[in-house]
Amino acid sequence: MDESETVAAAPKADPIADFVDKLSAALDAGDTEQVKVLASGLRTPDLADVIELLADDERVQLIETLGNDLDYEVFSQLDEAVRDQLSEALPNTLLAKAVTELDTDDAAYLIESLEESDRQEIFDQLSFDDRSALERNFEYEEETAGRLMQSDFVAVAPFWSVGRVIDYMRETDDLPDTFSEIFVVDPAFRVLGSVELSRLLRTKRQVLVEEIMNPDRHVVLATEDQEEVARQFARYDLMSAPVIDENERLVGVVTIDDVVDVIQEEAEDDMHALGGVGDESIADSVLSTVRSRIPWLMVNLGTAMLSPLVIQNFDATIEQMVALAVMMPVVSAMGGNAGTQTMTVTVRALATNKLGRVNAPRVITREALVGVVNGLVLSSIMALVAFLWFGSGLLGGVIAAAMIVNLLVAALAGILIPLTLSWLKFDPAPSSGVFVTTLTDVVGFFAFLGLASLWLS
Amino acid sequence: MDESETVAAAPKADPIADFVDKLSAALDAGDTEQVKVLASGLRTPDLADVIELLADDERVQLIETLGNDLDYEVFSQLDEAVRDQLSEALPNTLLAKAVTELDTDDAAYLIESLEESDRQEIFDQLSFDDRSALERNFEYEEETAGRLMQSDFVAVAPFWSVGRVIDYMRETDDLPDTFSEIFVVDPAFRVLGSVELSRLLRTKRQVLVEEIMNPDRHVVLATEDQEEVARQFARYDLMSAPVIDENERLVGVVTIDDVVDVIQEEAEDDMHALGGVGDESIADSVLSTVRSRIPWLMVNLGTAMLSPLVIQNFDATIEQMVALAVMMPVVSAMGGNAGTQTMTVTVRALATNKLGRVNAPRVITREALVGVVNGLVLSSIMALVAFLWFGSGLLGGVIAAAMIVNLLVAALAGILIPLTLSWLKFDPAPSSGVFVTTLTDVVGFFAFLGLASLWLS
Repeated sequence: MDESETVAAAPKADPIADFVDKLSAALDAGDTEQVKVLASGLRTPDLADVIELLADDERVQLIETLGNDLDYEVFSQLDEAVRDQLSEALPNTLLAKAVTELDTDDAAYLIESLEESDRQEIFDQLSFDDRSALERNFEYEEETAGRLMQSDFVAVAPFWSVGRVIDYMRETDDLPDTFSEIFVVDPAFRVLGSVELSRLLRTKRQVLVEEIMNPDRHVVLATEDQEEVARQFARYDLMSAPVIDENERLVGVVTIDDVVDVIQEEAEDDMHALGGVGDESIADSVLSTVRSRIPWLMVNLGTAMLSPLVIQNFDATIEQMVALAVMMPVVSAMGGNAGTQTMTVTVRALATNKLGRVNAPRVITREALVGVVNGLVLSSIMALVAFLWFGSGLLGGVIAAAMIVNLLVAALAGILIPLTLSWLKFDPAPSSGVFVTTLTDVVGFFAFLGLASLWLS
Repeated sequence: MDESETVAAAPKADPIADFVDKLSAALDAGDTEQVKVLASGLRTPDLADVIELLADDERVQLIETLGNDLDYEVFSQLDEAVRDQLSEALPNTLLAKAVTELDTDDAAYLIESLEESDRQEIFDQLSFDDRSALERNFEYEEETAGRLMQSDFVAVAPFWSVGRVIDYMRETDDLPDTFSEIFVVDPAFRVLGSVELSRLLRTKRQVLVEEIMNPDRHVVLATEDQEEVARQFARYDLMSAPVIDENERLVGVVTIDDVVDVIQEEAEDDMHALGGVGDESIADSVLSTVRSRIPWLMVNLGTAMLSPLVIQNFDATIEQMVALAVMMPVVSAMGGNAGTQTMTVTVRALATNKLGRVNAPRVITREALVGVVNGLVLSSIMALVAFLWFGSGLLGGVIAAAMIVNLLVAALAGILIPLTLSWLKFDPAPSSGVFVTTLTDVVGFFAFLGLASLWLS
């Protein structure tokens, strides 16, 4: 309630480290009591952090030591790589217990990476209700609304009165823990509308729900991609949305807290893609990290070979003036930096739907102008430096001209390459970078060495 | 309700472009009727998109043409650069009307970029209640919980019965539009707990709120940074959190829909920072874009000059074997790519608190191993290429050795530089890249040319 709680809720790096040290020591010593005392002081998301920080075998040991004291919610808070490691290492009976306790979406995440036979063994230990709810989630692909949704919700008929709805909710045990709206459905379970609880609470008991329901609802198809679902939540400020199957039957509800996780994941995916890495986590093994990064480096090795192909054409010029070899990395590096700036802004604008056919010409013109202005400023400095360094006005002039050309090319490449990729229906985030830097390298070397050879000949 | 609505909610690029063309034409022709008809078919977030796609003067013209038909909510959905442009261009009377209609947090965003005198003129046109609510938000800095919060909320005493709370809400007009929980406060307005509406609805009328309230609340200080608030929401799956001032008085509530915007902004900021751009938008002018990007390019120009300093030491070696100048960009480029991969993962892990003192040694070891494995694979390929291309086993050996060294350095730099920056309390996102690529350039050139000169001498 007071400031100390706020602080405790966001522990700084060091207290966590000290805590993990103590916990590791207790695990090593086999001191079950001490482990339980330590863990009981943590809130579930903090326990998840601690588990992620432990070594692989310590994680399993901790969870088995805690036994029934473990809050199974912790599995829903773990990083995917850690969760998968644990679900493979832990006994199926423990997983079955966890699945029973968790919401259907979190339960599905926990066992989705298991072998079919293990998953079947867990299903066999579930109650009929839990099992069918979970099987419903597994009917849909990973990363769809159907996998993200909760199968528990409150649905009522339009002719019910507010009083009857409230009484029904008071008397029914099997309701979701918390929810912010109820749904109004027809006999075929098609969504007619929804009523927010705040509205329900402020309405007199005899009013019928159809009179107060909001019919203008965003429905989400169970097969829809979770990224698209997240985009609609952010765009229309939704708190929850009903999920329907192909027959328009209401099958679940997606709530905004699940969507927050998706938004963070998608932002991380885009950021990783721009940096040339795939869907990897800090908890992955060396082998899986190499496997995820080598393909990108191979592609870059291929495109990096274009620079030698260009430079080789000017080997005679370089022999004539070695200062060219000394300065040439500057021209390509500045092109790469400027191109990356434009590309980053463009890729993000495309991901958030801020860039389209209508404003593309305006934005392209702006980027070209920015490229020219930046080129003029930077090339003047560079010309002066080259002149003072090598005492050669020729070198200064050549490097300045090459930089202006390369910064204009960088600006145009930085916007046109992601735009084109996106118009061809490719995701611009993973591949724009390699095209942009290859182009600015090649143009940088060609413009610089080419102009120099013209001048020197 | 059906599939067609889902589709309409996420229009593809082209229909939007066609629509904007039509709207532009109607604006040019001064056809007020047609403009109003077109705009009335749009939901507010879609109207915001359309406004962003229009040229500066068309935006003002559209809003003035719509007049009282405009849903002022649209201002809360606009990109910051566009919103600021409009708030400067639109008459203060229109802004005052918008401020009255909007929630306090959105109203504050709308007028925060205005001159003090304009803001005062708008304040003078507000009712006492609106004005004091807004002044309360302006007491807090931009990007704090106090600026993000809603000043409307329901607070009741602990000894009230559920029935009294429900009656109070039915009778009071001046309540927030929607809310999912109410707060329980003491006479000094300190938060004692909260009750979710779903709980309230399921409890009998005679029960006291103190019996059903949840006392274990996350409170947020009004002065706290919005990024920290967003992190807590994501971490503890909060739907809303009470905001308190320095005297622990409840002053407002932050809800998750505001936090979603913050999460997206922060992810965008990190992504931009990694790409070497600041807080810029696709709608900024040429001048402000140049101003935002030149400083970063200047820093890069400075660090890029380190490469010529290294290379110049080996100009005699290059004169002896020009193939070195031809191949040297490959070594530095591969180091830069590998370093950027590691750095991207590290920066994101730091931003999401996945990397700390406990697991740092393990992750550093992993990255070093990944660097060595990648180096062995790529350098074998490169040695073969160099041998076949130039028929020189020496060149192949030198380039392979330099690449192994540079990929190990890249891996270590990619993790140690952001980690060190973060331990020194600097944000690693904006500056890690320049350090990492400078180091991989310098080490790449030095290792390659240095080894070659040893071999050749």
